[in-house]
Amino acid sequence: MADPIETALDAINFGTDGLVAAIAQQHDSGEILMVAWMNQEAVRLTLSEGRVCYWSRSRQKLWRKGETSGQVQWLREMRLDCDGDAILLLVQQDGVACHTGRRNCFFRAWRDGGWVTIAEPQVDPEKLYRRKA
Amino acid sequence: MADPIETALDAINFGTDGLVAAIAQQHDSGEILMVAWMNQEAVRLTLSEGRVCYWSRSRQKLWRKGETSGQVQWLREMRLDCDGDAILLLVQQDGVACHTGRRNCFFRAWRDGGWVTIAEPQVDPEKLYRRKA
Repeated sequence: MADPIETALDAINFGTDGLVAAIAQQHDSGEILMVAWMNQEAVRLTLSEGRVCYWSRSRQKLWRKGETSGQVQWLREMRLDCDGDAILLLVQQDGVACHTGRRNCFFRAWRDGGWVTIAEPQVDPEKLYRRKA
Repeated sequence: MADPIETALDAINFGTDGLVAAIAQQHDSGEILMVAWMNQEAVRLTLSEGRVCYWSRSRQKLWRKGETSGQVQWLREMRLDCDGDAILLLVQQDGVACHTGRRNCFFRAWRDGGWVTIAEPQVDPEKLYRRKA
């Protein structure tokens, strides 16, 4: 029998760079936490492990969300859009999603002709990323 | 004085293809409606007209959402993420967002090893896209 995860992958239209956009949404509040990218392996790991794994374009490696910061995203449901080129991840976010220490990454709003910061860090980012001795 | 919209554009990190991912979210319910792409001109038009304009990758042209279907997205607020490469559009969606006639594009959910359709069309798509005589 075919691996069900291969069926999942078949429906996803990865771009020429092998990536698909993924949006993480807190499952109960509807808050948009972040947007990142997934390749085939990231989707595979996310579905098999139940915690969200992305592909980091800047570091060019798989990135299990929270592997350094501890701010894990637990997958509640994966959804796919009509043309298969965007993924919606309904998640339970441990702590904060943004590397700045804010709950979500969309903390700049365009208001009255300028970008306004509408959320403050809840955690000191240095504490999130402090290397263990 | 500098055009404020140029200030908006300065903060956005358009990719090498000149595009940035944009997520449309219904402003009051939190429903994720769709994901599409914007170039500089699409952002300019969206901010100046107050209705959402995307860049259609398949048609390689600007696409004022609803120009054919009538299903316009009225901008309530534009937000930008921490690294400036994703835009969140809080909108008032007229009618349905998806070209299939569904309210939103994310109508496939991965459940028990298969993709399950979790929403049905509310409008016949042929009615949305019927050419006027």
